[in-house]
Amino acid sequence: MPPEEVPASRQPLSGLRVVEISSYVATPLCGLTLAQLGADVVRVEPLGGAADRTRWPLADSGTSLYWSGLNKGKRAVAVDMSSEAERRRVVDLIVRGDPCVVVSNSDRYPEFGHEALSALRPDLIHVLLQGRADGGAGVDYTVQAATGFPLITGPSGAEAPVNHVLPAWDIAAGLYLAVGLLAAERERLLSGRGRSIRVALDDVALATAGNLGYLAEAQVTRHERVKSGNDVFGTYGRDFLTSDGVRVMVVILTERHWTKLLAATGLTAAFAGLADTLGIDFSSESQRYEHRELISTLLARWFGGVPFAEAAAVLDRHRILWERYRSFAELGRDGGAELRKSDLFDVVDQPGVGPHLAPKSPVVVDGGRLEPRPAPAVGEHNAELLPAVPDTVPGAAGGGEASPSA
Amino acid sequence: MPPEEVPASRQPLSGLRVVEISSYVATPLCGLTLAQLGADVVRVEPLGGAADRTRWPLADSGTSLYWSGLNKGKRAVAVDMSSEAERRRVVDLIVRGDPCVVVSNSDRYPEFGHEALSALRPDLIHVLLQGRADGGAGVDYTVQAATGFPLITGPSGAEAPVNHVLPAWDIAAGLYLAVGLLAAERERLLSGRGRSIRVALDDVALATAGNLGYLAEAQVTRHERVKSGNDVFGTYGRDFLTSDGVRVMVVILTERHWTKLLAATGLTAAFAGLADTLGIDFSSESQRYEHRELISTLLARWFGGVPFAEAAAVLDRHRILWERYRSFAELGRDGGAELRKSDLFDVVDQPGVGPHLAPKSPVVVDGGRLEPRPAPAVGEHNAELLPAVPDTVPGAAGGGEASPSA
Repeated sequence: MPPEEVPASRQPLSGLRVVEISSYVATPLCGLTLAQLGADVVRVEPLGGAADRTRWPLADSGTSLYWSGLNKGKRAVAVDMSSEAERRRVVDLIVRGDPCVVVSNSDRYPEFGHEALSALRPDLIHVLLQGRADGGAGVDYTVQAATGFPLITGPSGAEAPVNHVLPAWDIAAGLYLAVGLLAAERERLLSGRGRSIRVALDDVALATAGNLGYLAEAQVTRHERVKSGNDVFGTYGRDFLTSDGVRVMVVILTERHWTKLLAATGLTAAFAGLADTLGIDFSSESQRYEHRELISTLLARWFGGVPFAEAAAVLDRHRILWERYRSFAELGRDGGAELRKSDLFDVVDQPGVGPHLAPKSPVVVDGGRLEPRPAPAVGEHNAELLPAVPDTVPGAAGGGEASPSA
Repeated sequence: MPPEEVPASRQPLSGLRVVEISSYVATPLCGLTLAQLGADVVRVEPLGGAADRTRWPLADSGTSLYWSGLNKGKRAVAVDMSSEAERRRVVDLIVRGDPCVVVSNSDRYPEFGHEALSALRPDLIHVLLQGRADGGAGVDYTVQAATGFPLITGPSGAEAPVNHVLPAWDIAAGLYLAVGLLAAERERLLSGRGRSIRVALDDVALATAGNLGYLAEAQVTRHERVKSGNDVFGTYGRDFLTSDGVRVMVVILTERHWTKLLAATGLTAAFAGLADTLGIDFSSESQRYEHRELISTLLARWFGGVPFAEAAAVLDRHRILWERYRSFAELGRDGGAELRKSDLFDVVDQPGVGPHLAPKSPVVVDGGRLEPRPAPAVGEHNAELLPAVPDTVPGAAGGGEASPSA
C-alpha cells in the first residue's frame, strides 16, 4: 500500500479521544500532533471562536492561516463559556464513553481542571500548559528574554538581544505535552489509572539550556558565551556569500569533512603551510573552532570568487555538508512547486483559503502518514458532539469516527 | 509524598527498554526525555566513546558539559563497532527479554536497522532520525538555512541571515521522535506489533513552517515576511531599554493588556488623541501591529525615562506581560542561585564536572518528577549489560533495574 493510502484505522493513535480547551501555539500543536497520528481531537471554543482564530498571517479573505495550520484535522465545538450549563455539556463530552485526554492552557474554569474531572473519571489524563512554572504569565517571547538565548544570537559585537522569530519554546512545549500525555496513556493502558501532566514554557526553556550544557558552563567555568554570528559553536560552520550574491551555510563536523573542504576549495597546501608556520592542528575540531576567523577569511575569499552554480557543483562533488538560504517566499512560489517535491506535503482545500499545500506529520509510521485535512469552522461539529440529549452522542466513543472533517 | 520523592517505579515509562545508538542532539534528547519519565535507556557507543563525547562546552577537566547534559540518567555500553561479533552482542541486548525500542540516527550498520531487527523481534519499535527526508545529510544549521527563518530573524533592514543559536530543529526532532515512539508503544500494548518510526530534520522544519502558516502565506498571499527585530508578528510586542540600560521584553496580547499598559505608562490620553486625529483603532490587535512604530516611539520614550526598578514596579502593578533579558552567565552565577529557586533543578555530582544544578524533565507527572542523575562513563555498564555469556544478562529485562547509575 503506498504511503498516501495508510488508512486512519491503522494509525497508532486511532481510538484515542482528545478534548482540547486551548489557544495559541503550544497546546494546539500538541493536539495537531496527536490528530496527525490518528487521534480524534475535538477543540472546544467559546461562541464565535477562540481569540486566536484571527491571528496573523491572514488569507485575503481574513481567514487565519496560522489557525488553519495548527488545527488541521480536528473537530470543533463552540459553547457559551460564560454559561455553567454549557460548560457542563463540555464536561459530559469529556467524561462519557472511552477514556479521554484533556489538553488545556488555562485554569480559568475549575470544572475543566484535573481535580474536578478526575473525580468524575479516575482514568482521565489531564494535560496543562503553563506560562511559568510558578503560576505567572509567560509567552514564547518573554520566556526567550528570561533564558539567555537572545543575548548570544545575532552578529558578533552587536549588543542588543535578538529574539528568534520561530516560537521555539511553544513548539518544544507542545511536543513535551504530547510526550507526557502519551507516557501517561501507556501507564493508563497498563494500570487503568489516569494522570495529571503539566509543562511550563519557562521550564522547557531552562531545561533545554541545561540539557545542552549552557547552564552547567555558566556554573562551573569562567567561559562566557557571546554573540558570534552564524558560527557554529565548538566546531567549524559559517555562512558565506558567493560572487553572485547567493548566501550558503557550510558545516564541517569531522576531519573527513575538513579534508574534503580543503580539496574542494583548493586550499590544502595553504592550510598545510599555516599549520606548520603557526603550529595549528586543523585536524582537531576544537582547534578549527578556536582558529575559525583565520579559516573563514580564506574560505570567504574562495566563495567570493566563484558564482553560486560553480560553488554548488564543487561542494556537492566533494560531499560537503552545506545548504543555500531560502526564503519562505521562495518555498511558496509557483503554487509551492518546491514543496510539491516532498512527500511531506499534500493539497488541502481550506475554506476561506482555497487549495494549498499543507504538511502532514513529520513522524513517518511504517513508511506512511495521514493526508492533511482542513481545519474546522467554528462550531462545525456541535450537532454531532453536543446534542440536546447528551446520552445519544454519535462519535463520542472515538476510534472509527476519527476524521469526519476530512 | 513530596514531589522530590516520586520513586522510579511510579514513573509512567517504568519498564520501557530503550537502546540508543546515536549521537549529537536530537536522538540523545529523545532518549533523555524517556529516561526522565522512568524508561531504562542504554546508550551504545564505539570503544573510547562516541564522537560527541568531546563536544563543547567543556568543563576545565575536558569533560563535555554538552554530553553530560544530554545523557543524564542513561546507562552506557561501549563495543568495537568494526567487529561483527561485537555488534552481535548489541543485537542480543536489543532482541532478548522484554520488547525494546531502538533509537538511532544512523543506518550505517544494517543489523541495527528496522528490517533486520524486526525480523528477529516483530514487536520491536525502531526509531530513526534522518538529516533530510530524501536521505541526504543535514544538521540543524543547514536545515535552518533551507527553511526560511534566518532570513526573517534579526534587526529590521539588515540583509544577512541570522541563524538561531538554539538548535531548535534538533530539539523539536528529538521530541517528535519521542512522540512517534510512544504512539507506537501504545499500539504495541494494544496489538503486540512493532513499528518503524522515521523523523527527518528538514521535515520537522518544513512541517513547523507549514503549521504556523508561513508556507500557506507564501503560497496564497502576496505578503512577504521581512526582518522586524524583536517585534512580535501580528500583535504588539517589543524590547525596550530603561534609563539605566536594562533591556526588557513587553508583549501585549489583549485589549485589556493594552489598556493597562497605557495606564501604567501614563499614555492613555496621548493615545486617545492619536486615535481621534489619525483614525486608528488601537483596541484592535491588527491595528496595534500595523501602527507598531508609532506605539514603540512613545513607549521607548517612557522606558528610556525611568530606571529599571521603577519600570518593573509599574509593570508588575499593572500586571503587564513582560520580562527582563537575562544571560546564561547571570542564570549560573553564584552556584546557580537563581536556578536553585526552581523545582526544575537539583544537584548532580557529575564525574569530571563536580556538583552543579541540572534540570529534571519539564514534564511534571502528578506534581512530581525524577531527580536528575549523572551521565555514564564510557562503557560503564558493559559488565552488567554485555556479559561474556549472553544468556545470563542481569537487568536486561528492564523495569526494576531502571536506574543503576543514580
